[in-house]
Amino acid sequence: MLEPTSRTELATLGEFGLIDRLAARIVIGQPSTVKGIGDDAAVIDPQALHQVVTTDLLVEGVHFDLGYVPLRHLGYKAIAVNLSDVYAMNATPRQVVVGLALSNRFPVEAVDELYEGMMLACRNFDVDLVGGDTTSSRSGLVISVTAIGAVAREDVVYRSGAGQNDLLVVSGDLGAAYMGLQVLEREKAVFQDSGAQPDLEGHDYILERQLKPEPRRDIIELLKKLGVRPTSMIDVSDGLASEALHLARNSGLGVRIYDEKIPIDPSTYSTARDFNLDPTTCALNGGEDYELLFTVAQSDFEKIKGNPSLSIVGHMTDAASGYQLVDKQGGVHPLTAQGWDALLKS
Amino acid sequence: MLEPTSRTELATLGEFGLIDRLAARIVIGQPSTVKGIGDDAAVIDPQALHQVVTTDLLVEGVHFDLGYVPLRHLGYKAIAVNLSDVYAMNATPRQVVVGLALSNRFPVEAVDELYEGMMLACRNFDVDLVGGDTTSSRSGLVISVTAIGAVAREDVVYRSGAGQNDLLVVSGDLGAAYMGLQVLEREKAVFQDSGAQPDLEGHDYILERQLKPEPRRDIIELLKKLGVRPTSMIDVSDGLASEALHLARNSGLGVRIYDEKIPIDPSTYSTARDFNLDPTTCALNGGEDYELLFTVAQSDFEKIKGNPSLSIVGHMTDAASGYQLVDKQGGVHPLTAQGWDALLKS
Repeated sequence: MLEPTSRTELATLGEFGLIDRLAARIVIGQPSTVKGIGDDAAVIDPQALHQVVTTDLLVEGVHFDLGYVPLRHLGYKAIAVNLSDVYAMNATPRQVVVGLALSNRFPVEAVDELYEGMMLACRNFDVDLVGGDTTSSRSGLVISVTAIGAVAREDVVYRSGAGQNDLLVVSGDLGAAYMGLQVLEREKAVFQDSGAQPDLEGHDYILERQLKPEPRRDIIELLKKLGVRPTSMIDVSDGLASEALHLARNSGLGVRIYDEKIPIDPSTYSTARDFNLDPTTCALNGGEDYELLFTVAQSDFEKIKGNPSLSIVGHMTDAASGYQLVDKQGGVHPLTAQGWDALLKS
Repeated sequence: MLEPTSRTELATLGEFGLIDRLAARIVIGQPSTVKGIGDDAAVIDPQALHQVVTTDLLVEGVHFDLGYVPLRHLGYKAIAVNLSDVYAMNATPRQVVVGLALSNRFPVEAVDELYEGMMLACRNFDVDLVGGDTTSSRSGLVISVTAIGAVAREDVVYRSGAGQNDLLVVSGDLGAAYMGLQVLEREKAVFQDSGAQPDLEGHDYILERQLKPEPRRDIIELLKKLGVRPTSMIDVSDGLASEALHLARNSGLGVRIYDEKIPIDPSTYSTARDFNLDPTTCALNGGEDYELLFTVAQSDFEKIKGNPSLSIVGHMTDAASGYQLVDKQGGVHPLTAQGWDALLKS
């Protein structure tokens, strides 16, 4: 773990002391938050809107490695990935509750850093931290976040709403978070073998994509401004292939993706080449991009074409056509969600 | 861990297989649940009610010991303790989301048992399981539950609403869950030392209180029927003393508890004596009773007196009088939240 400069043992505060310390910094800003931390439960005024709820667990050694993930970034990311799920419903996140299991090896300063990251994400996205549970852990750090958002009933966008011939659109670019992880893992291995300091030079973009992903509120706002209502939507946490398959299956359709249309940042591309990986495979199967993947009616084409934040990567087909990936030469391959294991063999 | 009779490795299912398996058994029953498992987030229709939200983390080795806690009971309890928090707001629980971190030592059958317990609690209390996150764990089992309830704005009961001279009332009886834990720990130690089978005979009540606590929906319903609106309320998870202090501090008052009024079941009493523990201390500082502690106006005395489910254990005072415990001889002692550590020294 990257150690803070001073160290106060958690035991000196106790559970209630820790909760008081954290609660003292929390600012409630949402009109929909009636009561935050400090009772048996938080109270929310839905203000005549539907509520969406999503939860995630982040487990040390599975989802993050404290050897190279700063706690502040980890806190930010823990909130961000849940907000991404809320935006993927076309909803606005408003509240989060956080569960933390902490081992005694964490000093108070480390918990402070973790919370600072969480609060920064809350501030950036206008979300209140309204409740939580802090407990000890016999082993690693575990963070659970549940995010709650609001949306008018008629504005909810499900995975299941895509229509045949709808365009398949993705925001931003893909594969960068995965390549950022590869660089971090490589430098960790080098450090363990030789003690050499990590060489992260020139990898700013892909490292930031891995360590501090930004949920795409801006895309939800952009689509509203353009007057485009997605017919189906999902956030890209497990790779483009996996998420496209979710939209197709949930909508009872097939899908066709053109690999040359997949947006890949030049730094992702060059790093993938350095690692002898196929950049397209990284974009299709690398995870944690937290972009939005959605479908729009063909009639919306004029509204989105040429927008630098949006890429049309394919379209939905009838179910019988199945799940297809079309290469640059026009060859058609089955689109499958291979996950990260496949990447290591590509 | 108590092993199920057959064993299927989790790896044979994979994460998505496991989610599909669990999702297939989930039945949605609440009219307020618009969309359950299967999208980026669940969707809830608040039906013009306020929403309450509470979250808890249960960590293996801290909150439970799989050496003697059956997984089915653990699943039930994980849901129950969260519903207890919802009732303590005078709200009706409607939805839960669940995060599970599982190590590979769990076979599929063990996960099934855990879920069966969770679903049973959901059925018993008319709650929908609407979302979740299932992940692997490098070490122990971690369960995170977030419960969501609904309540009319004017019916919310906070910890902070008690008035001076209000009666302090607790449901059921106290200290039993703590004594159940002592018996389980003792028998585990005997088993480890000698291999002797656990002798749990005659301890049914206190064991059930520890292993399968029931949130007090019936008390919320009883109070409605009696026409009594609590002025403040909290659930008893950390012992009567700690919770009474929360009500007093949050309401800006003092509190006075009469130790002879504290309801203690005869089996709790006799087991405490067997362990050379003071039963009153167990009731004051033992945790996990999940009873409701609340205050009512003096004018409601006639409505609740003599009710077998309710005990008037004291009353609220002015802040200057502080926090007092009155013994059978009329001696006044400071009321402090000592927690479980104190019990071992009593």
